[in-house]
Amino acid sequence: MDKKKGSLLSYRPDIKVVDATVRDGGLVNDFRFSDDFIRDLYAANLKAGVDYMEFGYKASKDIFREEDFGPWKFCDEDAIRSIVGDNDTDMKISVMADVGRCDYKRDIISRADSAIDLYRIATYINTIPAAIHMVEHCKNMGYEATINIMAISNAKEAEIDEALELIGKSPVDGIYLVDSYGSLYMEQIEELADKYLAMAEKYDKFVGIHAHNNQQLAFANTIAALTRGISYLDATAGGMGRGAGNCSTEQLLGFLKNPRYDIIPILKFLEKHIEPLKRSGIIWGYNVPYLLTGQMNRHPRSAIAATREERIDFLNFYLELSDKD
Amino acid sequence: MDKKKGSLLSYRPDIKVVDATVRDGGLVNDFRFSDDFIRDLYAANLKAGVDYMEFGYKASKDIFREEDFGPWKFCDEDAIRSIVGDNDTDMKISVMADVGRCDYKRDIISRADSAIDLYRIATYINTIPAAIHMVEHCKNMGYEATINIMAISNAKEAEIDEALELIGKSPVDGIYLVDSYGSLYMEQIEELADKYLAMAEKYDKFVGIHAHNNQQLAFANTIAALTRGISYLDATAGGMGRGAGNCSTEQLLGFLKNPRYDIIPILKFLEKHIEPLKRSGIIWGYNVPYLLTGQMNRHPRSAIAATREERIDFLNFYLELSDKD
Repeated sequence: MDKKKGSLLSYRPDIKVVDATVRDGGLVNDFRFSDDFIRDLYAANLKAGVDYMEFGYKASKDIFREEDFGPWKFCDEDAIRSIVGDNDTDMKISVMADVGRCDYKRDIISRADSAIDLYRIATYINTIPAAIHMVEHCKNMGYEATINIMAISNAKEAEIDEALELIGKSPVDGIYLVDSYGSLYMEQIEELADKYLAMAEKYDKFVGIHAHNNQQLAFANTIAALTRGISYLDATAGGMGRGAGNCSTEQLLGFLKNPRYDIIPILKFLEKHIEPLKRSGIIWGYNVPYLLTGQMNRHPRSAIAATREERIDFLNFYLELSDKD
Repeated sequence: MDKKKGSLLSYRPDIKVVDATVRDGGLVNDFRFSDDFIRDLYAANLKAGVDYMEFGYKASKDIFREEDFGPWKFCDEDAIRSIVGDNDTDMKISVMADVGRCDYKRDIISRADSAIDLYRIATYINTIPAAIHMVEHCKNMGYEATINIMAISNAKEAEIDEALELIGKSPVDGIYLVDSYGSLYMEQIEELADKYLAMAEKYDKFVGIHAHNNQQLAFANTIAALTRGISYLDATAGGMGRGAGNCSTEQLLGFLKNPRYDIIPILKFLEKHIEPLKRSGIIWGYNVPYLLTGQMNRHPRSAIAATREERIDFLNFYLELSDKD
């Protein structure tokens, strides 16, 4: 058990903070952020010492209609460059691509012609081979790449072992532990972290964590993961993200001891953009329906609907969830 | 490090759930709950398998004026009996008494004449001797008693050791680890838990945890504490409590595996009482000012004021907090 890395006073130079506000937060508002929001977030992340900023998804326009979403669903090069120019900074640019929803051979161009540094390939455990094809393309194009296995709380142990072995042998740089349903407790995160890290050490990869806040454990699980040795830590300003949202950047930066990180630019961003966004009626964050989908290890979609309808008939909601088995 | 007690599938029969909704929640609304609220909470706790229900404080009417508070600031026997009768149930009744704010020799009568089972003596570390006097009185009167050392995050290690030794030698039944400022991380909770548990084992006491949610770690810290061996777990319906509030009963009961606990009566109580209370304008729960007082290990009073004033100038708030040193 005692594999703790670092202490509360020291810091680990391998830690990377990945801001996923636009990407996961975009799931709440269909990626319709003002240019001002994106520009100020980029500036805030830079000043705060954030290592990667994820701009959104590389979704295929053959599958999703442009008029249904803001630009960050598609992350055209022009859109990113309108914010970052040549991104002549120490902060890297990340974009997520979903297996089956990205025409990667067409849309993921050579890194030499791109402002993007990292592609994160989101996959379920049964589409790992397709994810690896995408990774191979990204690596051939010159990018850093990760595989983010979603909904891991529903995967069987043998499946996870097999998936990790396949991924280990691929050219991917890193693998993410993703608690899509916000259902995992710290003890489970630690066990999975150990499993992922064992593969990572064997094949020289890094491991990341992306937590959801259904049970108000996103920050706690992120701490548990990093204490175990996980180094890429996802966070979002104000915890903005689908459903119950994520570990918040302001929580995480307050915890990390590396003096390169600074919470102040994030506090200013919260004032200027996140609070107004909330007051405009964009809703995310912990509530009882999310707690219940988390406890029962379910996709949050029913809780998202319950939240939208402002349901407080929690017992009915609980019984509906139980009935679906 | 590896002193884990229990697993995610097993349960510990020594666990006791202590509902502190009225007592800690009363700090939010000056203990002005409707009789209906208290009656329904009592019934819900009974059905949910809660082990102790704390009704409020035993505050001295020489210090606090009755007209300034609801009845649960004082917990007169008649008030408690109007709800519980003779409390002919398996659930025990708890009341908190603050050192220096309770005329215990006058107001804490013989248990034979009382509906109360447990007195929890709340103290700062520098008033432990006075707390022990109160405990001796409570034990002489026939009650169970605990000492709850508040603001432990501000105590020095040597002080804690000395305090625990004094408490160990007293007739107290249990001692509480109290994260008053919501500033502690799981690792610190685990270290303190080990310290408290070592004393407890030596002197045959139990240990409890009372967590606050300033950093959204109340539930996580409660899990960390119980995994370490702490057995008395405070929770409140909807997390209702001062400032950022507490570990919520609905989170905790969803985690505990003992079939004696049932989340359903709590869900019904949330629907009927907690949601309407929130909608009536009674405010508690996590926000950025609470996060910042937690991160900086400060009393939440400035964040309570900021919340009341609906301040979102987080940077100014942060700078004010920093300036106070």
